[in-house]
Amino acid sequence: MSQHEGDDHAAEEEQHVGEDAERERHASAMSTESLLAASDNVEEVHGGTQSSHRLLAYSDALLSIIATVMILPVAHTKMQGDEELDENLQLLLGTKLAVYLMTFLIVTVAWAAHIRLFQVIVRIDDTLALLNLACMMLITLLPYTFSLMATFPSHILGILLFCGCVMVIGLIQSVIVLYAFGRPFLLQDQIQACEDRTVCRHHILKVLLRVPVMCLLAAVCSFFCYQLVLVPDELFLLSVSRTCCWLLSSSFRISPRASCGVGTNFSEDPEQVMFYTFMPSEPLSKERVEAFSDGVYAIVATLLILDICEDNVPEPATVRQRFNGSLVAALRPYGSDYLAYLGSFATVGLLWFAHHSLFLHVVQATRLMGLLNTMSLAFVGGLPLAFRLTHELPHAASRDERRAVQAACVLVFGAGAFQLATWVAALQGSGQRTLRPAVRYGGPEHVFMLAKLTLYPAVALTAFLLTCALSRFSATIFHLMEIATPLAFLLLRLTVRVVLALLRRLFGPQRRQTLNGEENICSGVPFNPLLIG
Amino acid sequence: MSQHEGDDHAAEEEQHVGEDAERERHASAMSTESLLAASDNVEEVHGGTQSSHRLLAYSDALLSIIATVMILPVAHTKMQGDEELDENLQLLLGTKLAVYLMTFLIVTVAWAAHIRLFQVIVRIDDTLALLNLACMMLITLLPYTFSLMATFPSHILGILLFCGCVMVIGLIQSVIVLYAFGRPFLLQDQIQACEDRTVCRHHILKVLLRVPVMCLLAAVCSFFCYQLVLVPDELFLLSVSRTCCWLLSSSFRISPRASCGVGTNFSEDPEQVMFYTFMPSEPLSKERVEAFSDGVYAIVATLLILDICEDNVPEPATVRQRFNGSLVAALRPYGSDYLAYLGSFATVGLLWFAHHSLFLHVVQATRLMGLLNTMSLAFVGGLPLAFRLTHELPHAASRDERRAVQAACVLVFGAGAFQLATWVAALQGSGQRTLRPAVRYGGPEHVFMLAKLTLYPAVALTAFLLTCALSRFSATIFHLMEIATPLAFLLLRLTVRVVLALLRRLFGPQRRQTLNGEENICSGVPFNPLLIG
Repeated sequence: MSQHEGDDHAAEEEQHVGEDAERERHASAMSTESLLAASDNVEEVHGGTQSSHRLLAYSDALLSIIATVMILPVAHTKMQGDEELDENLQLLLGTKLAVYLMTFLIVTVAWAAHIRLFQVIVRIDDTLALLNLACMMLITLLPYTFSLMATFPSHILGILLFCGCVMVIGLIQSVIVLYAFGRPFLLQDQIQACEDRTVCRHHILKVLLRVPVMCLLAAVCSFFCYQLVLVPDELFLLSVSRTCCWLLSSSFRISPRASCGVGTNFSEDPEQVMFYTFMPSEPLSKERVEAFSDGVYAIVATLLILDICEDNVPEPATVRQRFNGSLVAALRPYGSDYLAYLGSFATVGLLWFAHHSLFLHVVQATRLMGLLNTMSLAFVGGLPLAFRLTHELPHAASRDERRAVQAACVLVFGAGAFQLATWVAALQGSGQRTLRPAVRYGGPEHVFMLAKLTLYPAVALTAFLLTCALSRFSATIFHLMEIATPLAFLLLRLTVRVVLALLRRLFGPQRRQTLNGEENICSGVPFNPLLIG
Repeated sequence: MSQHEGDDHAAEEEQHVGEDAERERHASAMSTESLLAASDNVEEVHGGTQSSHRLLAYSDALLSIIATVMILPVAHTKMQGDEELDENLQLLLGTKLAVYLMTFLIVTVAWAAHIRLFQVIVRIDDTLALLNLACMMLITLLPYTFSLMATFPSHILGILLFCGCVMVIGLIQSVIVLYAFGRPFLLQDQIQACEDRTVCRHHILKVLLRVPVMCLLAAVCSFFCYQLVLVPDELFLLSVSRTCCWLLSSSFRISPRASCGVGTNFSEDPEQVMFYTFMPSEPLSKERVEAFSDGVYAIVATLLILDICEDNVPEPATVRQRFNGSLVAALRPYGSDYLAYLGSFATVGLLWFAHHSLFLHVVQATRLMGLLNTMSLAFVGGLPLAFRLTHELPHAASRDERRAVQAACVLVFGAGAFQLATWVAALQGSGQRTLRPAVRYGGPEHVFMLAKLTLYPAVALTAFLLTCALSRFSATIFHLMEIATPLAFLLLRLTVRVVLALLRRLFGPQRRQTLNGEENICSGVPFNPLLIG
């Protein structure tokens, strides 16, 4: 029902949009009211059917926390001394970081399956909500069972637990599908209207049960040959092969359903009938991508302050005895932690800001965009660790410091570059439908958006190259980068205008120009609003 | 802009509602499209005005994490032995828990101020987004500075840091207000249309700057008299006095603007013109209450698994040496942690479920409801700690075990009781407007909702009383409660139907009945859908 209130609210907000839209607004408000009344009747008939909006938001929040949880063991690995850093770094990069990345991947796969499921089931009732909570509880166990499996590859228990979780999740999801198909008013409109609903159910169940069955096989195999770590390999191969399929079919761009419904009229579009296609152009709920990303960015931004709040309050006794009662002196050793927190919060915040700007202009997300977005988020997850390393390392050990700075640069670059890739995928994929006209090639906001998204990769790349050349000043370079980037974002609109004005003066209005490595067809007219407004 | 797409989406989802609504739907879709086109023009004119929806969602995610962060030092306090528990419990309850509660309160006050601000400013641009991020960063520092202040009451540094943060937050918010009033198209419609915008700005700035000025005074005072801990007292008194004002004015129910606009047509309602009134009936953004609650529930539900993922993976060397390579034996000591996690996830999940059901029926939230909801969330925050205590304590020490179980019961009861209070406030406050008709007195869902919300308080109360009587079996009672409650939720609809059928058979259809301590006017007719459908 909150959907309708949301609608009402949205209609309310649109009030101001233009004086000429006043008539339409009244029509809209009227129709919304009658819809509200109609839907009230429907609910009373079906007894407690609800919009699934908030259930999905809560699931996204849970999943985003769980996806990032395995960065904590990495972040909390203490650096003891100067000479041990190399070993520690190798240990980190070797096992814990791999576990983090794989967990992130696994939870994201579970999240994608969850999205797929709830694109078919668009309304819920109490039973579905409770089943979904049970499913969430099992998904939250996945990181732990996976890390057990990774730490003890020769023990059968880890594999069994992991496979057991995956199988039970698959079973619960099957129960959800069966329950929902037994009550067709919970389903998506097209499926509800569809005549061969049984075929549809069969297809969905087949896709759903593929992974549990594979896990069952793996578990049975692991009984006979203990030493083989089949499951992660299989899962990894599966996801890689899926990705390859996506990319291949993306390059061929054979989307038989892309011909119909090119306009903005999505409600009539028959494309959303087919789910579980694993095509890169398969639509993905934009709201859920946003909610999941928000959760990850929020957790990652606050990771360091969680530790600071817990660990960096000194004991009153210690302050009295060791620091002669001087709180300032007692807090001084934590200074680098505070700086690391501020730096990582600012970086994560600005990356969120770029993401936010990007998705403001996205009309319809696709699987490929979701995949690239996930890669970006996986890089973001490592940022607090990199910032802590950068700020904690002793300034004498120039080589280690440079390495930490470079690791941070690589992470920032990866996060920014995959955001840019998401945008490029949105530009290319199914061109007309994924982005709003303002940011497409030649749109008035195109160059500005490009500048926003290339700022972080460019800065990180520059810093990386500078540290290679001037390794003695790597910390200085890094701190300068931290201060300069937020300012650059504030002044971005101004800078872009100045650069564009310069370019226009230099090359004239009718020529092609190359800006930041991407070609824009600058016809002169589209940039006018930027130059004037 | 995502607002419009959301609208589009909502319109799309409403498609199925009824065949007779088809005509209206087409009108709505058409009007939405023209609105979309109109708003595109508006945006191009103003250059990058955006819907604030996602910025607020991200802020809510950050704030909910920060609000619950100070429970971590409490949860991580290790219980060493049997005899130390009393002292430890006192230590916990005495300082850390107080710090947690106060931090929760402070962050919630900051969150309420943030809501108020962004009910006036309904659209954002890039500058506002960046200013808001800066504001968020400072808010995330509040828990740490407050815990410094609480741990070192005699040191001036903690007070200065805390006051400094609050003052800078106030200044940034003032800058946001000045910036937004300089660009009226960012403002709420009524203020935008209002002629005396300067008066409005003056009022808002006055309210905003009240707290920073008070903090400045406190900081100056603390220079002269070190020993006085003025600030927390002041803040506490401030919030208590506000609450009292709310409750007082609530009991008198003098709301001069409640007479106009009783229907569902909120967009025409002039009530939303006045903000910063501190009336309990002042409207509060329902979506933000939901988003903040979702964040808190999600963090709290996963608090224990965060620790389990980090700490409960044994070292391979330890397993080889101490447990003869048996992973099962190595994991056995962690068994109570797993149980505690499952129990707390299920309880938090079901409390979320009750909250979700409640807010599905809320049309318009008020400040009083927000306050009661916050109290409920504060209790929820302590649950993981209580569950861990309950599961970790040795079963021999009957007295401590009982105490832990009772603490858990009190927390569950508090969380559930304040949810119920939120509902009662929604029922009473401004009756017609806050709730959907289905759950009002006599509505078909009224009894069912009441049963959902009273289930947890009732179960917790029963468990508490049972542990008082049968203290030796308190752990057994608690585990039974953990298993029984989810089942009760699953069977709730059935149970309510059976109970109602019994009641109707016993008392006849035309009599008043008392159910769970609340009176329902059972006219026989409203319950028909429940009994039949």
